[in-house]
Formats: sequence, C-alpha cells, structure tokens
Amino acid sequence: MQHTSPLAALRSLLKERELDGMLIPRSDAHQSEYCAPFDDKLEFSSGFDGSAGLALILADRALLFVDGRYQVQARQQVNLDEFEIHHLHDEPIHLWMRDNLPSGKRIAFEPMLAVNSQYESLRTSGCDLVAVNDDPINEIWTTRPAAPRGAIRQMPIEISGESTASKCARVGESLAREGADFLAITLPDNIAWLLNVRGSDIPTSPVPLSFALVKNDGAVEWFVDEAKLQNLDSALLASINIQSPDTFIDRCQQLAAGKRFLLDADNAPVAVRFAVENGGGEITWQADPVTLMKANKNDTELQGYRASHVQDGAAWVNFLAWLSHEVPVREAAGNPITELEAQEKQLAFRQLCDNFIEQSFGTISAAAANAAMCHYHSAPETNFAIASNEFYLNDSGGQYFNGTTDATRTLNFGQVDGQRRLHYTAVLKGFLALISLQFPQGTQGHQIDAFARRPLWELGLDYDHGTGHGVGHCLLIHENPHRMAKKVNPWPMIPGNVLTIEPGYYLGGSHGIRIENQVEVIASQPGFCKFASLTLIPIDLSAVELPLLNEQEIAWLDEYHQLVRETLSPLVSSEARPWLIEATAPVRTQRA
Amino acid sequence: MQHTSPLAALRSLLKERELDGMLIPRSDAHQSEYCAPFDDKLEFSSGFDGSAGLALILADRALLFVDGRYQVQARQQVNLDEFEIHHLHDEPIHLWMRDNLPSGKRIAFEPMLAVNSQYESLRTSGCDLVAVNDDPINEIWTTRPAAPRGAIRQMPIEISGESTASKCARVGESLAREGADFLAITLPDNIAWLLNVRGSDIPTSPVPLSFALVKNDGAVEWFVDEAKLQNLDSALLASINIQSPDTFIDRCQQLAAGKRFLLDADNAPVAVRFAVENGGGEITWQADPVTLMKANKNDTELQGYRASHVQDGAAWVNFLAWLSHEVPVREAAGNPITELEAQEKQLAFRQLCDNFIEQSFGTISAAAANAAMCHYHSAPETNFAIASNEFYLNDSGGQYFNGTTDATRTLNFGQVDGQRRLHYTAVLKGFLALISLQFPQGTQGHQIDAFARRPLWELGLDYDHGTGHGVGHCLLIHENPHRMAKKVNPWPMIPGNVLTIEPGYYLGGSHGIRIENQVEVIASQPGFCKFASLTLIPIDLSAVELPLLNEQEIAWLDEYHQLVRETLSPLVSSEARPWLIEATAPVRTQRA
Repeated sequence: MQHTSPLAALRSLLKERELDGMLIPRSDAHQSEYCAPFDDKLEFSSGFDGSAGLALILADRALLFVDGRYQVQARQQVNLDEFEIHHLHDEPIHLWMRDNLPSGKRIAFEPMLAVNSQYESLRTSGCDLVAVNDDPINEIWTTRPAAPRGAIRQMPIEISGESTASKCARVGESLAREGADFLAITLPDNIAWLLNVRGSDIPTSPVPLSFALVKNDGAVEWFVDEAKLQNLDSALLASINIQSPDTFIDRCQQLAAGKRFLLDADNAPVAVRFAVENGGGEITWQADPVTLMKANKNDTELQGYRASHVQDGAAWVNFLAWLSHEVPVREAAGNPITELEAQEKQLAFRQLCDNFIEQSFGTISAAAANAAMCHYHSAPETNFAIASNEFYLNDSGGQYFNGTTDATRTLNFGQVDGQRRLHYTAVLKGFLALISLQFPQGTQGHQIDAFARRPLWELGLDYDHGTGHGVGHCLLIHENPHRMAKKVNPWPMIPGNVLTIEPGYYLGGSHGIRIENQVEVIASQPGFCKFASLTLIPIDLSAVELPLLNEQEIAWLDEYHQLVRETLSPLVSSEARPWLIEATAPVRTQRA
Repeated sequence: MQHTSPLAALRSLLKERELDGMLIPRSDAHQSEYCAPFDDKLEFSSGFDGSAGLALILADRALLFVDGRYQVQARQQVNLDEFEIHHLHDEPIHLWMRDNLPSGKRIAFEPMLAVNSQYESLRTSGCDLVAVNDDPINEIWTTRPAAPRGAIRQMPIEISGESTASKCARVGESLAREGADFLAITLPDNIAWLLNVRGSDIPTSPVPLSFALVKNDGAVEWFVDEAKLQNLDSALLASINIQSPDTFIDRCQQLAAGKRFLLDADNAPVAVRFAVENGGGEITWQADPVTLMKANKNDTELQGYRASHVQDGAAWVNFLAWLSHEVPVREAAGNPITELEAQEKQLAFRQLCDNFIEQSFGTISAAAANAAMCHYHSAPETNFAIASNEFYLNDSGGQYFNGTTDATRTLNFGQVDGQRRLHYTAVLKGFLALISLQFPQGTQGHQIDAFARRPLWELGLDYDHGTGHGVGHCLLIHENPHRMAKKVNPWPMIPGNVLTIEPGYYLGGSHGIRIENQVEVIASQPGFCKFASLTLIPIDLSAVELPLLNEQEIAWLDEYHQLVRETLSPLVSSEARPWLIEATAPVRTQRA
C-alpha cells in the first residue's frame, strides 16, 4: 500500500505562503463520520484512511495523530520515513504543539474543517493559527475526486410523521425562546430531518451534504447544490430559499449585524463563528435544538422502525438458516464458506425486501480471530473461512424506506471451547441485564451502561467501546445525542428514543463476541421507562452455559424468542422456518 | 418558633450605605456543612436553621431560597409575612435577580462567604454586586455568639501514617508540577490532614477553622487563632509560620505580585481571588490537590478505620441486643422505648469504648413514619415510641482516635406488613448488588450508583439521595471528592478510598428504610477493585422475603455475618453474645 507522498509539494507551498506548518484533519465541514472521497484530505496527504485522525505537516517533520483503534493500521498505511505516529487522545495535538514548537509559529488550518472547541484548544498552544480558505491541498490535489452530487429524495409525511412546516415552526419557536435570531445547521442529518428529505452523497449515510439557516420565524435558507434537487417536490422547493453551499459563510456574515446566532460548539465549523463575529453578530453556543427534536421519534417514525425490523429480521433468519446449514456441510466438503461469501449472501437476502435501499453501514462479517478487531471489515486478503468450532460475528443493518436497522449476532455452528462459552455467557448476561432494565424516565446513558458490563467485570474482563448509540430514522447509524457508555452523556432518555444495546468481549488473536439489539425506549410504570426490542432475530444459545442463567434471564429470552417466532414465521422462507422454530425454542427445552 | 426579625435594622443600614439589597448565604468562609453559631447569619436574619440556603434582602421584599428538603421546614421557621420562600435549584437566585430586578441595582455580598462559581453566576444577573467586608449584620447582631476557639490536638504519626513534612513536600511538588507558586487552602479538613492536627470548633466535625498558604517548596503559613494552639507540639509550631486568620486575605494580596495561586473554584472564597488579582497575581482554578491526596488513605489510616469499626461494631451489637430485648418487653408493659431513649442508650454504649471521642454526626434515631424524613433528628416534640410492628431506622457513627464510622441499620422487632417487606428486600438487594461489585480501577461513582437502585426501579420506586459518600479519617463524615450518586462525580475510585454504600426507600407518612455500610476500596484481580466492608454490624433479615434472594446474595450475607460474628464475639457483652450468634446465623438456617 505504498503511497505517493504530496509532502514535498505541500511544504513548498507552505514556504511560499510563509507558513510554518498546517493541520490536516480527517473531517469534512459537517463533521461526518463517513466522509466523501472528495473530502478525505487526510488520506490524500498521508495514506491513512481511518475514520478519525489529524496530521500536522511542518517544514522538517510530519506527524499523524490517531486514536487507539488505529495505531496498527496507521503504521501499515503511512510511510514511516515521512510520518511519526502519535496518539490522538494520550498526547493531544495542542499540547504537543505547546511543548514542541516555539511560540508564534504560523500554523495554517482550514476553518470549515475545525469546530470551535478544537479551535479553542489549539489556541492554547501558543502558535499563531492562520485560517486559510484556499487550503494548499486544493492546489496540489490534481487527482481529487469530484464533490458528491447525490440526488435528494422527498421523505413523505406518511413516513416522517410531521410536515416540514411544522418542524420549522418548532425550531423557530425554540430559537425565539433562547433569544436567538438564527440557527446555523451544519449537520446534514439535522437538515434531512427538518426538511423531510434524504440524500445520497455518501453510501449508507442518506444525508444531503448541505447547510441551512433557520430564522426564529421558521423561515429556512438551504445552501445546497441545485443539481441534487431534481427529484424534489416543487411545493417544498417553493417554501425554502435555495442558495449555493459556497455562499453559506458569506451569508452568515451578511445577516449577522445585531443578530444572535445559535451555534453548536462541537459541530459547527469555526468559520461560522468568524463570519458571525466579523459581521457584528453574537453567538449562543448550544447544541443544535434539532438534534434533540430528531432523537425523540414520533409514532409514525416508530411504526416505520418496527416494520423495517420485521423485514430485516426475516432477512436475517433466511440468512442464518442458510448459514447454519451450509457452514458444516461446506466445511466437511473442504470448501468452507468465507466471511465475504456470507456477507454477500446476507445482502442478497436483504435485497429481496421491497423496502430495502442499501446497507446502513459496512457489514462486519468476522470469523474467529478477525472478530477480535471491533472495526474489522472483510477484505480478500483477510477473508477467513467460517469454521464450526469458532465464533462467527455478524454486525450489519439496512436502510429501509421506513427505518434503519443495526444488529449483531455471534454464532456458533458446532462446539466452541469452555473459555469461549464463559465469555459468550457473560456477554449475553450483560445484554439481558440492560435490555430488561426498568429505569426512571430521564436517566442518562452513563448511569446504566455498567449493567451490560457487570458479568464481564466479575471475570476481570471488559470491553473497550460504548454499550449503545442512537440510530437515526432512515438516517445515520450513529445518531447523536444519546449514547450509553462509560463516558458521561448528559441527554436524558425518554420514550421515543431509539438506541442499540451491544455489549461484547474481544480477545486479541482469538475471538470476538458481540450481541446487539436495537431498542426503543417506552413508558412503563408512572415515571419509569423500559426498552422494547426493535430487532427481531434469534439469539444463539448454543454457546451459553445455561446453568448460569437465572429465572429472570430465561423468562426474557423465552418471551423474546416467542415474539420473534410468532412475528417472523409467516415471513421467512419455507427452508428457514424449521430453523427459526428450533432457534427460538424455550430455554427449558434446550436445557433438557 | 417565632423569630425576632432584624430586617428593619438591616434595611435601614442598607439605605444608609446606598445599597439596594444584600445577599445572606448559609455558609462560613470554609463552606462548612455544619457551621458554628457565630457564622450562622442566615439563621440570625431569617430564623431558618437548615444546612443550605440563601436570603436576598431588598428594601421592600425579602426572599429565602432553600432546596427541596427544606421547603416545609423553612415555612415553619420563617415569618412568612416578611419572607417569600423560593426554590434554590428550580429558581436559581441569579436568574431571579436577572428577571425581577432592574439592572444596575446595588446588591451587597460578603466575598469571604461566596465562592468563585457563585460569584460568576451572580454576575450574570445584571446587578451591580458590591463586595462588603464590613457586613451590615456584624453591626446589628448584638447577641452574636463568640467565634469558636476549640483547642487543636496533634494527630500522632502512628495514626496518620505520614509526617507533616512529607505531606507538605508532596503538596509543594504538586504545585511545582502545575506551575503554581502558592496553594491557598480554605478547607479546614484539608489543613487538618496536611498538618496532622484535629480541631474542636464544631461538634462532630473535628477540623480547625483556619486558612493556610502552601508554597511550592512546601513551606506553610497557617492562619489560625493562637488561642487554639496550646496543646500542639513545639516541633510542629516551629516548622510552620503562624499568623492571625484576620490577616489571610491581606497576606494573599501581599504575596501575589508576579505569582500564580492555585485556587479551588468551588470552595475558595472569591475574596481570595480579588486579593490575588489586586496584588498582581494569576490564578489557576483547580481542585485543591490536598482533597485527592487525603482521599487516598494510607495503610496506617486504613488500619485505624478497621480498628475503630471493630470497636464501633461491638457497641452497635451491645445496643441492638439490648434494644431487641427491650422493645417488645417495654411495649407490652405500656412504657415503650422512644427514639431519644434509644439514641441515648446507644451513645452510652459507644462511650464505653476507649478510643471514642464523640459522635461523628447527629444520630438519626427514627421510628415508623419519622424515618421517611431522610434528615430527621429526634426532638422531644416528635419523639416516637419504637413499635414492634414498625421499622426503626438508626443512622449513627463515632469519631474515634483512629477512625470515623458511619452506618445505618433498619430494624424490625416484630412483624411488618408485606409491602414493607418488599421494600426492605429491594433495599437490601440493591445494597448487596453494589457492595459485592467488582469494577475496573478508576471507575467513577455515577457509573455504578444504579446497581443499588435497580431492585427499587423494578418496583417503580427510587430514593432521592446519593448512594454513597466519602468518609474522612478522623475528619468529616461527608468527605470530598468521591461520591456515588446519579450526579456525575469525575473522581476515579482506587484502592484506599473509603466510602459509604447506603441505598434506602422512603414512603412519606409511613416508613423509611436505609441499609448502610462503610467500605474501603481494595484491589482484586489485575486492574479491578472491590469493596471491603469496614462496618461490622449484623443486617436484620427478619423483614426480608428470603425466596427473593439469589445464591450470590445469600453467600455474601453468610460470609459477612460470619466475619461479624467471629470478629465481635469476643468483644461484646455476655448479654449481647447470644443475640449476635442468632443475628448472624446463616440465611439457610433462617430460611428453614
């Protein structure tokens, strides 16, 4: 994977412009988790293609900062004669700059790619931060892919459950309450929700890359490439002021005099702040109110989620029945099924669903030790065979017209050893402890994350990722703001929130286990909530030490499997139905 | 409880000084939980004697802000013709001032009694905050009690485990690391720990009210009333620069030029900030490093805790054996034992211990519905009889020469009804879930608080207080910074921390239940910790629905009771021994 380095060209441009260095983040102007090739300046500059990172190019050194997940990958992808690899969190870049660069060094950064909180911490480095809009990379990246121009489609009110006008009015009222005149929305999933549209700029992330300004009377200016709008209703287009995305920053500055803008400190490009301040406006730093409105799903959206999960569950069952049959047969025949073959087959089953659009993220189809890498994606060179004496982990989901799905199952088609059984049982017990919890309305994710970890903690084990994330409605697979993790998440959970519950355990070089259901928060007793599973897929019990399950856990599993069986039986193939019946049999039967 | 109001006199002084109003907090310069009568200006001004509150006296109105605990009490104690009662948290005073006072009103406050974070929020009110050092109350409070002058005693190194010199050197090094020149310590328990002294200004809180400055070379200036020092070693006194507390602020200002002070934003009076800034110094806002050093107990301190808990446990057993025998007998004789009689008897048992000094807080001795008030203290007019068909809750502890104890037991001397049994069982199960937890070293209190709540949550119930607090070593009963509660507590728990675990349940007008052990955090498997009980007192199982306990819970109880029995048997009275044997019998026996 040798990479042709643009460092020499970059350095010569920096010198020309009297800059001592430049920062290259792995982010677009929307802080997207998955960004378009057009926006991946970090990969262009360094060769590193992970989903988080930051490079600092100096005249005589180049540094790449990546987090714990990417320490190995970065060293494989990057020319280590050119780049030093540093740790993004253990050695924050502003502290590295403070401690290693003489103060006053002129370091360029692109203000559309940095958010305010990053900018503020960089300012403490003592360097002279130079905002550059004509980023040197734009000049030397001759092979740069085109900016995406994915068509935008309308989201009918039968699926969204609330009109654009109603949503805009609610946002306007919320601005008025906060004493703000304008909200600058730079998160495309918030724009998608607000305008009842979905985009196609980036695979699996159906958001329209664009910006918006909402006034406190609910009026909207949408800064979006007109080429993307051909499929939209004229009624919608007539109700909104359409402008080119290139004019967004100028427009903020033009509107700013004497006005107050509400900006999201963790998401809005600092360029918006500069524009508002230069234009004589004031800023209220606050989370974009759309983020919370969008997270509280309405009944129509919830019905869509439920329906899409029924379809997705049937596709899973068809796939798992096929896989369970084929793995031992093909293994015996010396022609085992591989990770890639399995994920292709699974996609084919999903594609049989009317409502299926595309995958909701890149499938993780991981056998044996490959599953120990949480963010593994199969490739021809790593493509393991699925063996019956090893775990196979599948984490996948779909974008449907009425909902988004995300689930993980870890399967065992033969016999795994005692240690793996203990680990699987602990992960399952953690999953059950959290998914069966009743909790006060308004509880925050970090308050209950540990229920999913306790059985592992008892063994002196843990997993190094969050326990659950929000899932968008026909939107992003990782939707803010709700999250269950060790890290504090201040957002109260209330009925209508949709999250995942996905504890796991990973033993490097050996095996990986994760069990994940998507759930909705529902009201239970007065003042209390529960989780109700959206995901309808049998949970493999063949690797469970059944005597370690208590009555409550068994009751949950039996009730869940009954629901799965009764809901999906009429929908799965006749070949898959017997497998479904067996896979959802009561635990007592399996125990006996 | 009618109160002679000083409002007229106060208002006339305000007018004389051209002030539109003044703030009167319920706090001393040390932000003490229990403050000396000398410092209780809020009680003098309003009649309200709760432990938290704030009054705002205006020319034509007077407002008292108290939290949820004190809404009833405040209305009983305060003349409602003079004072409006507001909610301290639901209606923060700075917002009330912003919304109700014309901007620019001159509002006096005493900068020794406000901390920086309060001052900063008050500044957002739009009022003109006038710092007054000659508080008008000083002028009119003619019956003011004298400032406390409690003698200070030495804490021998055999009990503290680390010399004053070593502690001062460590603090100095920590300042040097932070690039600070001085630490201003305004928390008397931090001074007590640092200098290996204990005070007697306030009952149950053995801290010396005083201030200290530590330089980054470890040198200490101690601002303390000389009258308190007569019992101290000359060696200690010779190693420290002693000055009058009245000179503390001036001294800060005098030292400030070109220096950096480390100040605790949540605890240091804003007067210190003003002094440093006026003197030309700079401030690093950071938690006082002594707070964390003090919380990580050394082996000698831990041995002291353990020994004091053995003594305290024996006193509890003697008391509980007596109480269990006497309650039914005296009830039958028509002369029942009362809350006050019980707490006096308990104190008498504690006083038999050589090492006992005083109670570590005001005992909560609460029968039946009185126990539903979490902060109840018995008084002649509320003094309930202890009935055998009701719960009796006792929350008490002792200051011993080698440790501080705090424990709660809820007892049942006859038969309580089924609802009470369910509630008691849920509280016990929550207690057991948390106390038996193994957790990664560095876990924070809010991450595991919910384990103690889950059995109540399952019933749609909860309790409205924290689950555990730090306990000082021969120091404050509520010691910062560790805490287990719903609220975020950022301080990682590591071996050597001492906390309580105390879930409860309270049904107003009916009953209150709490079970509390003091625990130390100990290392278990690599990277993991557990709690080990310091408290050694039988847990009443007579109100438990035993079939609701699982094997793990029963095993914990049996092991704990065996430890209690074996440790205390030789130490309790011969009358109490048979009771101890029975009260610590294995659950199986009790079940059979």
